[in-house]
Amino acid sequence: MKLNCDIGESYGAWTMGQDEAVMPLIDMANVACGFHAADPVVMRNTVALALAHDVEIGAHPSYHDLVGFGRRSISHTAEEIHALLLYQLGALDGICRAEGTEIRYVKPHGALNNDMMRDDELLLSVARAVASYRRDLPLMIPVTCRHTEQRTLIESCGVPVLLEAFADRAYTDEGLLLPRSETGAVHTDPETIVAQARSFADKRGVTSHSGQWLELPADSLCVHGDNEAALQAVKAIREALTTRRQ
Amino acid sequence: MKLNCDIGESYGAWTMGQDEAVMPLIDMANVACGFHAADPVVMRNTVALALAHDVEIGAHPSYHDLVGFGRRSISHTAEEIHALLLYQLGALDGICRAEGTEIRYVKPHGALNNDMMRDDELLLSVARAVASYRRDLPLMIPVTCRHTEQRTLIESCGVPVLLEAFADRAYTDEGLLLPRSETGAVHTDPETIVAQARSFADKRGVTSHSGQWLELPADSLCVHGDNEAALQAVKAIREALTTRRQ
Amino acid sequence: MKLNCDIGESYGAWTMGQDEAVMPLIDMANVACGFHAADPVVMRNTVALALAHDVEIGAHPSYHDLVGFGRRSISHTAEEIHALLLYQLGALDGICRAEGTEIRYVKPHGALNNDMMRDDELLLSVARAVASYRRDLPLMIPVTCRHTEQRTLIESCGVPVLLEAFADRAYTDEGLLLPRSETGAVHTDPETIVAQARSFADKRGVTSHSGQWLELPADSLCVHGDNEAALQAVKAIREALTTRRQ
Amino acid sequence: MKLNCDIGESYGAWTMGQDEAVMPLIDMANVACGFHAADPVVMRNTVALALAHDVEIGAHPSYHDLVGFGRRSISHTAEEIHALLLYQLGALDGICRAEGTEIRYVKPHGALNNDMMRDDELLLSVARAVASYRRDLPLMIPVTCRHTEQRTLIESCGVPVLLEAFADRAYTDEGLLLPRSETGAVHTDPETIVAQARSFADKRGVTSHSGQWLELPADSLCVHGDNEAALQAVKAIREALTTRRQ
Repeated sequence: MKLNCDIGESYGAWTMGQDEAVMPLIDMANVACGFHAADPVVMRNTVALALAHDVEIGAHPSYHDLVGFGRRSISHTAEEIHALLLYQLGALDGICRAEGTEIRYVKPHGALNNDMMRDDELLLSVARAVASYRRDLPLMIPVTCRHTEQRTLIESCGVPVLLEAFADRAYTDEGLLLPRSETGAVHTDPETIVAQARSFADKRGVTSHSGQWLELPADSLCVHGDNEAALQAVKAIREALTTRRQ
Repeated sequence: MKLNCDIGESYGAWTMGQDEAVMPLIDMANVACGFHAADPVVMRNTVALALAHDVEIGAHPSYHDLVGFGRRSISHTAEEIHALLLYQLGALDGICRAEGTEIRYVKPHGALNNDMMRDDELLLSVARAVASYRRDLPLMIPVTCRHTEQRTLIESCGVPVLLEAFADRAYTDEGLLLPRSETGAVHTDPETIVAQARSFADKRGVTSHSGQWLELPADSLCVHGDNEAALQAVKAIREALTTRRQ
Repeated sequence: MKLNCDIGESYGAWTMGQDEAVMPLIDMANVACGFHAADPVVMRNTVALALAHDVEIGAHPSYHDLVGFGRRSISHTAEEIHALLLYQLGALDGICRAEGTEIRYVKPHGALNNDMMRDDELLLSVARAVASYRRDLPLMIPVTCRHTEQRTLIESCGVPVLLEAFADRAYTDEGLLLPRSETGAVHTDPETIVAQARSFADKRGVTSHSGQWLELPADSLCVHGDNEAALQAVKAIREALTTRRQ
Repeated sequence: MKLNCDIGESYGAWTMGQDEAVMPLIDMANVACGFHAADPVVMRNTVALALAHDVEIGAHPSYHDLVGFGRRSISHTAEEIHALLLYQLGALDGICRAEGTEIRYVKPHGALNNDMMRDDELLLSVARAVASYRRDLPLMIPVTCRHTEQRTLIESCGVPVLLEAFADRAYTDEGLLLPRSETGAVHTDPETIVAQARSFADKRGVTSHSGQWLELPADSLCVHGDNEAALQAVKAIREALTTRRQ
């Protein structure tokens, strides 16, 4: 069970996240590609930081929306989605190549991620763009109760699938994240977070907010490096999972 | 003597140049990378058009300045230049790779090009970025009377050099383009343009505005597809040079 | 019956529309405010051109989306809509004020216009922003069969309403523009265009695509200056309406 | 002796500075206008915060350069400077007007400020733009040994002048800020900062880094709200100057 984290989301003079602190704790870095966050210098520094800690680099492409941080839906044609993904994958990969490495997977960001999980046409556009970029580059998506169906669709493009889950978020009975507006949507208690991480790691699933057991076979847990509490949670998960692996 | 042309400089709803008309007439397409012109869709269409006409694709990176079309100097650190070049080369190359091709050379655009021709430190930053991107990717620069010196500097980074000249611009005694503000700076007479193209192709040099002979061994002529007159000039050059080659 | 036209939609090195040719033919100029098109220099030149031809200046604000030309829906909060409208109205008005004039009305652009016509909450956000900017500044919206309802909503904010119609577009029975994808959606025959203009001017309505009479009391006709054919249509409308007024 | 502070420099999801903490301590807020920092929502919130603390609002316009935070020189024509200033002044003023207030002065940001202090042509372009925007709107510039000359130039455009000084920076013998690269350029000791603030307030000048007395009649001191140490310095200055006034 690998830990992945959105990273490299500073921009120009603005800093976001605690990249130096979280990088040593994770396995996979979802690196912003300049469309929702990051400029070329930030991207190059982030790639160097990931390499220094032997962390796999994934592309974290987005709608082009700096001011909205890629969190707002923007309507696109399939052709536009295809082109904006190639552009961002290539840009990050160019920076990686100069450092003797390359991107290992793709995880769409924010609204693009949300939208493709609700819209199979969009998911197909994303998968096709990834397939056309490089054979065998995996696409990472959140695991939900529709994971078999979505895996089939993505694999039909020749793209391997990685499934991610969240240790700090409550799940609905459909295997979706309970909206943040709902009570209990976000776990802040480290013990609960660790227990949920262990559940994903050991039992390949989680108990939903309503108490129902969900089979959700995640390959990776998404963690956060936004602040001190988030970092403590990552450390706790890291320690718990490593212990379990022994 | 190959013909190169800046191309793919439309942006969103705005069209620039007559790309469909000029592409069949050229050998090398300097494709905008999104920083002074072009969005991902424009770039993808431009790459497809170049492939359809068997035209070599070069990256045409720029300072990040859409509203100024990359024509305004912006002060940068060497680190910033390095990162912004990798980003743009990678982005275009990503789009190329999805079409089964790749970029074949790099020609900086506008103010970045002008600035690096005046500032060896900047030229070195550019050459180093190109070298770190891919071994043996040539850097195209305008040929001037300093070409030997500049070639040495660029090749010291392991980067091959391509020299370009202009058939439709008068040259100063230093082998620089006579500023457009000067009388006679731009040739509009097709016969003069063709004669200058032949001079570069056959005699490896040109007579300066003041009448002095300049050794300027160009590998390529830069042509334009902006309007009908420009297209006619390209056709005339194409015909003249092809005839000469036989 | 005044003629209004979207104008000032060039950006940096990219030109759009034939502003010099169309400005003398219109009464109201919907001036782009930098979010879908126009930079500050373009805006200043457009304001000067409007003043030279004694044309009323309206603000033509948009979602912030240059590459999409403001034609793509972007989800926003009411607070964001409020702020982005104030910003754009103020920016254009600042340029106007330096020329001794001011904006006379507001007509939202593209997807923002479409979205607010389908979503009363959004329309209310727009109206409130206009109201907070300046008392008695009218909001121009397309006239549809819901015009009474929409007028009531807008006027409840203290904002006067201007209704616009199109002479060159077919109307559905709901008083909406027939989508461009449908056959007969756009009139290209000058006689048909002039007849529809006269219908709006003289009979305060139009016959729908299916043959039904629609009461659509427009204050203004929206015309276009994109190309020569569009300009000819404006001239024809201008002539026809002026003749009728005598 | 009023205290002014650059403020409202967050952007989208990125936060900068401690605006809530510093606003109650200052007299004049230099509010970013969207070209180097701030989006319309940030600007609106900043205006509201200034009003809540009865702080004068000044426009803090910049070159258009988010990624460079307005700190990089960009070459412009006088016409471009004029237009980009009107655009930004108008945008902020539009937001102010909706809150029943207006901008009270203009202080250019970053590289634009530095460049105009070295280039009288540019300073003239700035002053003319301010003059054309609104009669009697003051332009704030750093006080240097050239202040009389610069005042004359600005006032020749009909624009009043405000001079600002820095309590936490060492001065050269020309009355310029000692570059940050030099030892002793930035005062961090609160006692030194307060002493320099008092010197400007009481003696209308400061002792240069080399020990020479400089007459520098500042109207305002520029303070910072970047971090806790900066806030403590502002509090110390505030207390010292208020005490002296009694």
